[in-house]
Amino acid sequence: MGTTMHRIVVLGGGFGGVHVALALERLGRMGTPVEVSLVNRENYLVFQPLLAEVVAGSVGVIDTITPLRRLLPATRIYIREVEGVDVEARTVTLGPGILPRPTVIPYDSLVVALGTVTDFRGQPGLPEHALPFKSLADAISLRNHVIHVLEQASVEEDAELRREMLTFVVAGGGFSGTEVVAEVNDFVRGACKRVYRSIAPSELRFVLVHSGERVLERELTPRLSAYATRTLAGCGVELLLGRRLSAATSAAAVLEDGTRIATRTLVSTVPTSPNPVTAALGLPTERGRLVCDGTLRVDGREDVWALGDCALVPMPDGAGFAPPTAQHAIRQANVVATNVAAHLTGAPQTHFTFTGLGKLGALGHRRAVAELPGGVHLSGFLAWVIWRTVYWAKLPSGTRRLRVGLSWLADLVLPPDPLQLNLGVGRGISQAHFESGDAVFHQGDLGDRLYMILSGEAEVVRRENGADMTLARLGPGEYFGEAALLGRIPRSATVQALTPMDVLILPRGDFQALLGSLPDLREGFEDVAARRAAQNAERLEEG
Amino acid sequence: MGTTMHRIVVLGGGFGGVHVALALERLGRMGTPVEVSLVNRENYLVFQPLLAEVVAGSVGVIDTITPLRRLLPATRIYIREVEGVDVEARTVTLGPGILPRPTVIPYDSLVVALGTVTDFRGQPGLPEHALPFKSLADAISLRNHVIHVLEQASVEEDAELRREMLTFVVAGGGFSGTEVVAEVNDFVRGACKRVYRSIAPSELRFVLVHSGERVLERELTPRLSAYATRTLAGCGVELLLGRRLSAATSAAAVLEDGTRIATRTLVSTVPTSPNPVTAALGLPTERGRLVCDGTLRVDGREDVWALGDCALVPMPDGAGFAPPTAQHAIRQANVVATNVAAHLTGAPQTHFTFTGLGKLGALGHRRAVAELPGGVHLSGFLAWVIWRTVYWAKLPSGTRRLRVGLSWLADLVLPPDPLQLNLGVGRGISQAHFESGDAVFHQGDLGDRLYMILSGEAEVVRRENGADMTLARLGPGEYFGEAALLGRIPRSATVQALTPMDVLILPRGDFQALLGSLPDLREGFEDVAARRAAQNAERLEEG
Repeated sequence: MGTTMHRIVVLGGGFGGVHVALALERLGRMGTPVEVSLVNRENYLVFQPLLAEVVAGSVGVIDTITPLRRLLPATRIYIREVEGVDVEARTVTLGPGILPRPTVIPYDSLVVALGTVTDFRGQPGLPEHALPFKSLADAISLRNHVIHVLEQASVEEDAELRREMLTFVVAGGGFSGTEVVAEVNDFVRGACKRVYRSIAPSELRFVLVHSGERVLERELTPRLSAYATRTLAGCGVELLLGRRLSAATSAAAVLEDGTRIATRTLVSTVPTSPNPVTAALGLPTERGRLVCDGTLRVDGREDVWALGDCALVPMPDGAGFAPPTAQHAIRQANVVATNVAAHLTGAPQTHFTFTGLGKLGALGHRRAVAELPGGVHLSGFLAWVIWRTVYWAKLPSGTRRLRVGLSWLADLVLPPDPLQLNLGVGRGISQAHFESGDAVFHQGDLGDRLYMILSGEAEVVRRENGADMTLARLGPGEYFGEAALLGRIPRSATVQALTPMDVLILPRGDFQALLGSLPDLREGFEDVAARRAAQNAERLEEG
Repeated sequence: MGTTMHRIVVLGGGFGGVHVALALERLGRMGTPVEVSLVNRENYLVFQPLLAEVVAGSVGVIDTITPLRRLLPATRIYIREVEGVDVEARTVTLGPGILPRPTVIPYDSLVVALGTVTDFRGQPGLPEHALPFKSLADAISLRNHVIHVLEQASVEEDAELRREMLTFVVAGGGFSGTEVVAEVNDFVRGACKRVYRSIAPSELRFVLVHSGERVLERELTPRLSAYATRTLAGCGVELLLGRRLSAATSAAAVLEDGTRIATRTLVSTVPTSPNPVTAALGLPTERGRLVCDGTLRVDGREDVWALGDCALVPMPDGAGFAPPTAQHAIRQANVVATNVAAHLTGAPQTHFTFTGLGKLGALGHRRAVAELPGGVHLSGFLAWVIWRTVYWAKLPSGTRRLRVGLSWLADLVLPPDPLQLNLGVGRGISQAHFESGDAVFHQGDLGDRLYMILSGEAEVVRRENGADMTLARLGPGEYFGEAALLGRIPRSATVQALTPMDVLILPRGDFQALLGSLPDLREGFEDVAARRAAQNAERLEEG
C-alpha cells in the first residue's frame, strides 16, 4: 500500500495563504506526503505595497500582481469564492464557477488566511460614494475616477463645480491613506502641469482627514510620524487632524463636527472587517478574527490553523496580538506549514516567535520614512531608496522584479499618460445617499436615470415665471424622474432631499431595456407620468 | 477688430476624427483662424490593428492606446457622449459629465466621424451571451473571459462540461474574426502548455464560423484568401464555412442550419451598425450612413462634413463607396480639414481621390498575409514582419512606438502571464437567453441569483425518490429562484425552458441589498416563497 496523501486546503491567496502553500510545496518536494489546494477569488497574488503607485502610473497595472499558478505549480488552485466550511465533516464548499453546481473539497487539515474586506456599512453614503483602497481593482478604479474628474474639470466653466471636482479627500492617516494621498497629489499636480493645462495649480486641493494628532502615529515613532506629517503638508496636502469622516454624498465628504467638504473624490482607507466567511466557520472568534494559540492552531481544533489579518495571533512577548502586516503573515505561514507537517507525524507544534523587522512607508515622489532594526530611523530620499529596494527584492518572482524594474526605468524616461481605462462596464442599478437640502437633479438637466426612494423624503419643485412651486413630497417606495426617461426631454422640475435620503438609481439604458421587455411596465410608467403631469398642471394653475 | 475664430466641432475620436483635428491644428499653426473641439467617449485613440494582440498579451493593455490630449494639444477635448445635434441652430448638446447639466457647444462647421457600434439586436441570445470585438474594453473582457474559462476548466472533473468550456467559437471571417481566432488559438494553446498543465491539447477546440467559402475572400485576392484559410486550418482552427450564426445561449452557439456547438466562449465580429447618433442628426442617410458627395460634404449642407465608417463616401473611380479602413479614414480626414478651411475663404472644395494602398492581416503567431501596391502579394513570416513594421511605424506617437517596441521585446524574453484583471465590477442586473429544453439551473445547485421571465415559458421540476414531478409552469412576468436566496439553501428543483425564453437576472448581492432597503419587498418574497413551498408539498403528496 502506498502512502496516503494528507489533503490540505488553504483558504485565501494573499501573502499568508500563498506562503503556506509555498512552504508546503517545499515540504512535499522533500518527501512529506501532502496534497495542497488553495482557494482564492483572483488568480493572482497582489503585491499590496506597490498598489498606491498604480494610481500614479509609476508601475504598470499588472506589474504588481503575480499569477498564483506560476508561484505554486504543484498546488491545485481553485479561483472561486468560499461558500461555506463544514468543520465537522471536514469539507469546504466552493461558490459557483462556470455553473452554479456546488463543488465540495474534503480536507485533512484546513488553513484559514482569508484576510479582511472593505466594509463601509453603517456609515451613511460611504458604500455608495466613497472609494475603497484595498484591491488592485480599487487602485485602477481610483486612477480612472481621478482622470475622469480631470477630463471633466478641464472643460467645465462653472467655477464652483470646478473647485468641487478639483478637491480630493482621503480619510485615514495610516500607511494606506498617507501613500494614497501622496500619490494622488503627485499624479494630479503632474498631469495638470503637463496635460490638463487649463487647470491652474491654485484650483487644486488635497485633504487628508485623520482622527489622530499626527499621521502614522500608531505605526511609527513620534519623530518619524512628525516628519511624515510635515512632509505631506509641505507637498501641498491639507491635513485635517483630530477629525473623522461621518458621511458622504456624491458631492461632499461630511465630517463628525458637521464640516462639509465639497468634493467628487473621497477615498476612505479606514474600515476593514474580517472576511464574512471567517465568521461563518462556526469557530471561536473575537471581533471577527479567529482566536489562535501561539502555534496558530484555532482554539479547540486539532486540524485548523489560521494566520494573517483574519487571525488573532498572540505576540510571543505576550504584548497583544500580531499586527496585520505582510512580514508577520509570511513568518506565520512558515510556522503553519511546519505545524501541519508536524501534526501528520504527531511531532510537537512550533510557536510563532517573530517580533517584526522594521517599518517602511512611502510619501509620494521620492520621499519615504523607514524604521529599521537596530533603532535606525530614516526619512526622505534615502528612506525612499531603501523602500523601493526592499519591496523590489521582496517581489515574488524574478520575472516580476524584471517587469517592475523596467516600469520604473520607463517612468524615468517616459511621461506617465493619463489614460482612462474605460472598461465600458455600465454600473447598472446603483444606490446614492443625499443629505438634507441636497439636490438630486435640477430643472433643465438631462434626464439620464430613474430614482426610487429607499428611505427619507424629497420634494419636487418647479420654477415657473420666477416663482418656486412645490409639486409633490415623495417618501419611501416612491419613484421619480421617469418623465424625462420616457420622453427624452429635460427634467421638468428640481428634486431635493428634505431629510437624509437613500435612493436606488436605474440608468436610462437599463430602464429602456426593462420597458422594452415588459410592455405592462411601460404602460404603468406612462399612466403615472400622465397623471403626475395633469396634477402638476392643476397645481400650477392654482398657484 | 481681431479675426473671428471659426469654430469647428469634430464628433468622434477614432482615426477619422483625430486626423481631422490634427490637420486643423496644423492649419491653425499656419495662421488659419480655427478653434477646434473634439467630442469622444474615451480619452484615447485606440489603435485597432493591434487590438487582437491584447487578447494574447503580446502587447500590453495600454500600448494600443494614445491619449487624445497628447496628440491634440490645441484642441478642446470633451470626453462625453453626444446627446444630440441641432443642425439648424448649429449646436451640439453633450451627454452628462459629472453632473447631468446639459452642455451646448455652438459650431460654424461640423465634422461627423462617429464610426460604428456593435449591434447584436434581433439575434436571439447574442446581446446577452456573445462577446463583441471592437473596443479595447472588448479585447480586455475577452482575455479575462478566456482566462476565467481556463481556470475553471483546469479543476473541472465533468468531462462534458470540460469540453464545452474548452471550445472557443468565433463568428465572422473578416480581418477581425480571423485575427481574433488566431490569437485566441495561440494564447490558449500556449497557456495550457505552460500553465494549465491539467488541460490536454486534445481537449481544445477552436471554431471559426464564416458565411463565405474562404476566409477574407472579400478582403483579399483568391490566392491569399486561400492561403489564409489553409493557414488557419493548419494551426488547428476548425473552419465552418458557408455557415451562419443564428442564436446563442450561455452554453451554446446555434447555427442557421440548427447545429448547436456547446461552448462557453462565443465571439461575434459580424454585426456593426452606424452609431445611433448619426441617424438622429436629421441628415440624409442610406443604411444608416451619412450620404456625402466627393468632397465629403453631407448632402444638402454647406457646413457639415462626414468621413470614416459612418459616411457613404463615393470612390473617385465611381466604383461603389470607400471601404471602412483606417487608411481611407486618414486620407478622408485630410480632405475634410482642407475643405473646412476652403469653406472659410470661399475657395473651392477638394475631392477625395485616394484608392487604397494595400491590405494586411495577421494570422496569429508570426504569420500574416499582405497585398502590397504594385501587385505584390505575400504570405507567411515575411508578410508578418511587414505587418508588424507597417503598423508599428503608423503608431501615432514616438512614445507609443517605444512602448510597443518594449512590449514586443519583453514578449520575446518573458512568458506572457495569464493574469485575469478582475476589476470587481459586479455585473448587476443582466439578461439571459435560453433555447427550448435548456436548464436554467438544476436541483441541488447553489442559489446565487433570482430570475424573472421576460418572454417564453419554463417549468419547475422536482426529482424525489427517483421520480420527476412538475411543480409549476411559469410565464412572462413571473419570477423564480427566490427560495434559495432567502434561505441560502441549495435549489430545491430544476427549472428548464419550455420555449425560447428571455429572463432578467438579479444576483444575490443586489437582491439582498434590495431586501435590506425595502422590508415590504422582503415580506412579499417571503410570503410567495412560503405559499409556493406549501403548494409544492401538497402536490408532492398527491403525486
